[in-house]
Amino acid sequence: LVSKLPNVGTTIFTRMSQLALETGAINLSQGFPDFDGPQALREAVARHLMEGRNQYSPMTGLPSLRQQVAAKIARSYGAQRDADSEITITPGATEAIFCAVQALIHAGDEAIVLDPCYDSYEPSVELAGGRCVHVPLALPDFTVDWQRLADAITPRTRLIFLNSPHNPSGALLTRADLDKLAELIRGRDIHVISDEVYEHLIFDGQRHASVLAHEELYQRAFVVSSFGKTYHVTGWKTGYVVAPPLLSAELRKIHQYVNFCGVTPLQFGLADFMAAHPEHVEELPAFYQAKRDLFCDLLTGSRFTLTRAPGTYFQLADYSAIRPDLDDVAMAEWLTREHGVAAIPVSVFYQSAPKDMRLVRFCFAKREETLRQAAEKLCAV
Amino acid sequence: LVSKLPNVGTTIFTRMSQLALETGAINLSQGFPDFDGPQALREAVARHLMEGRNQYSPMTGLPSLRQQVAAKIARSYGAQRDADSEITITPGATEAIFCAVQALIHAGDEAIVLDPCYDSYEPSVELAGGRCVHVPLALPDFTVDWQRLADAITPRTRLIFLNSPHNPSGALLTRADLDKLAELIRGRDIHVISDEVYEHLIFDGQRHASVLAHEELYQRAFVVSSFGKTYHVTGWKTGYVVAPPLLSAELRKIHQYVNFCGVTPLQFGLADFMAAHPEHVEELPAFYQAKRDLFCDLLTGSRFTLTRAPGTYFQLADYSAIRPDLDDVAMAEWLTREHGVAAIPVSVFYQSAPKDMRLVRFCFAKREETLRQAAEKLCAV
Ligand SMILES: CSCCC(=O)C(=O)O
Ligand SMILES: CSCCC(=O)C(=O)O
Repeated sequence: LVSKLPNVGTTIFTRMSQLALETGAINLSQGFPDFDGPQALREAVARHLMEGRNQYSPMTGLPSLRQQVAAKIARSYGAQRDADSEITITPGATEAIFCAVQALIHAGDEAIVLDPCYDSYEPSVELAGGRCVHVPLALPDFTVDWQRLADAITPRTRLIFLNSPHNPSGALLTRADLDKLAELIRGRDIHVISDEVYEHLIFDGQRHASVLAHEELYQRAFVVSSFGKTYHVTGWKTGYVVAPPLLSAELRKIHQYVNFCGVTPLQFGLADFMAAHPEHVEELPAFYQAKRDLFCDLLTGSRFTLTRAPGTYFQLADYSAIRPDLDDVAMAEWLTREHGVAAIPVSVFYQSAPKDMRLVRFCFAKREETLRQAAEKLCAV
Repeated sequence: LVSKLPNVGTTIFTRMSQLALETGAINLSQGFPDFDGPQALREAVARHLMEGRNQYSPMTGLPSLRQQVAAKIARSYGAQRDADSEITITPGATEAIFCAVQALIHAGDEAIVLDPCYDSYEPSVELAGGRCVHVPLALPDFTVDWQRLADAITPRTRLIFLNSPHNPSGALLTRADLDKLAELIRGRDIHVISDEVYEHLIFDGQRHASVLAHEELYQRAFVVSSFGKTYHVTGWKTGYVVAPPLLSAELRKIHQYVNFCGVTPLQFGLADFMAAHPEHVEELPAFYQAKRDLFCDLLTGSRFTLTRAPGTYFQLADYSAIRPDLDDVAMAEWLTREHGVAAIPVSVFYQSAPKDMRLVRFCFAKREETLRQAAEKLCAV
């Protein structure tokens, strides 16, 4: 068998979570909460399970859940997106991204990714027969260098990936960034996949510049989000993708053969909960900002250097003052084994990371107690 | 946007279920039960939901569920398959098939499908840049014509799809069939995807000839099954794939970027239920045979001609004596609209169906009351 993905191993998230388990380290590596989703949400799903919502749902997703997503989009961004023709429920944001890539990329096409970027983008493009062109974000704030992005466009470019709030850095795109991108691709045969799974995790009073609210860009875009991140249930693997009707139609053709449909009782429960608790998403920024601030405040006593993350539930930490001799993969392992806190190295999000980068990523989607224990260990490093 | 699947519309299953809903017809089209999964199973999932099993599970699936699958395979077929290196949990059998195809098919490769066949095989091959070669099963019993299959093999052939028990006919492959296939591909660079999602739905005392129990063939195979079919919960979209370690490793590389992992509370609940109720699968043949026999007995009073299905929860019916003027797509629609029973036309499972074929498929995974009501309407046709 000739491998389709010869360079791929097990993802860093799986490896670090595994190492945390083996060593008994506090797991701040893979991004998931150590607290539970809302009780009312779990009860709603349990009720639908017991009441018999256990057979196939429609291929595009449960209509009532799509309606709730449309309502959330209207409330959050003032944008009107049609539940029937523009919103598709998927088994996780990863599958949404995969299907969008398959819809867009033909053999020989190029996709531009902004490094550091999430690890599923490139293999998705490769499986479609395409090739990724890597453009690094500008340091130290992980901003887009628009000139470099413009220079990377070729006649073969068909797709540009956006990700805001940005994993792993937490950086945010601004409305001005979206304007620049719209201008850049105007009149060109280029589409956008906008990974906005952390859309509701934004701090310090900032607002998310969603592609959903940028009319011109949206016409070329697949916008991906995740119930798992927003409702603290990453293990439900339920997400959605919003795209104009013609793009949605192409994505659905693929989704119907990749997976067919999402999990029925989860969709019923999510629809109930979203209808009853629209305040949940409004409370998320304060909820997660408190965690970010607690974690960062506690680490002021450490030898890590931090710039508070503007969004996501990830915090980068520079360890140059501690072990500049270790690259970040070695550092993440060392922290896990020697100091009992698992982290994610940042270089794995790059095709080729800056040689002198000394950053690891911690996930602060944890109970106060967990954050305190982890911070104590990290202050001892 | 140039479509990746220009010839694809909405699947027949979605369209017929939709038409049944619109017209209020009894839905014997899309394959799903109108009764619920076992109460103990649903309770187990609800318990795990409430007890906090709601974050990511391992990419390969929950270890305890993989153990239960290995135990079921050992009990059912006497084959020892390793839970760690050979069994992967997937969000539905469709995703398992899709990922196996992506692992096997490179641009320009050929896959052989035996028509009639399930509708996801061909688009999965096309999305990998391959091409399907269609070999019709021999009528009237939907058996493999081994000479025709051998003739269809070319130097580009990389994959042959098997499906037993067979959707839509219910036909079974025999051990002798597996021997012939093993002989045919021996020494050639050809793999097998064996879709065995109806493995436990086999009637009249026959036994399933699983590729899992055929040592030589298994070494080249991905064997796919479905918790949805076996535990009456199609809307849980949870399946699994069994393959030798090297094949599993390639499939997992792809699965981790297509979806990453299955739904955690469902996997916990399935593992509990399988451990406590190994008798469930043993009782399935009698359970479904009673439904098949009830349905067929009731239809002896009709003008449909039936040969009882050897397996699956589908029953084909010949309508030549009723409306030979209608092709089967028109017949399925006519039955739905005029007689209040939705069915699936068989020609849609073919690249090119025999012109004189007059078959529709009914799903008998229904309560006795539903089957009686449907049969009454069908006897009036
Ligand atoms: C699907 S596992 C990865 C979770 C995640 O998004 C992250 O840790 O970056
Ligand atoms: C995934 S919808 C199709 C269900 C099914 O397997 C069938 O009806 O044949």
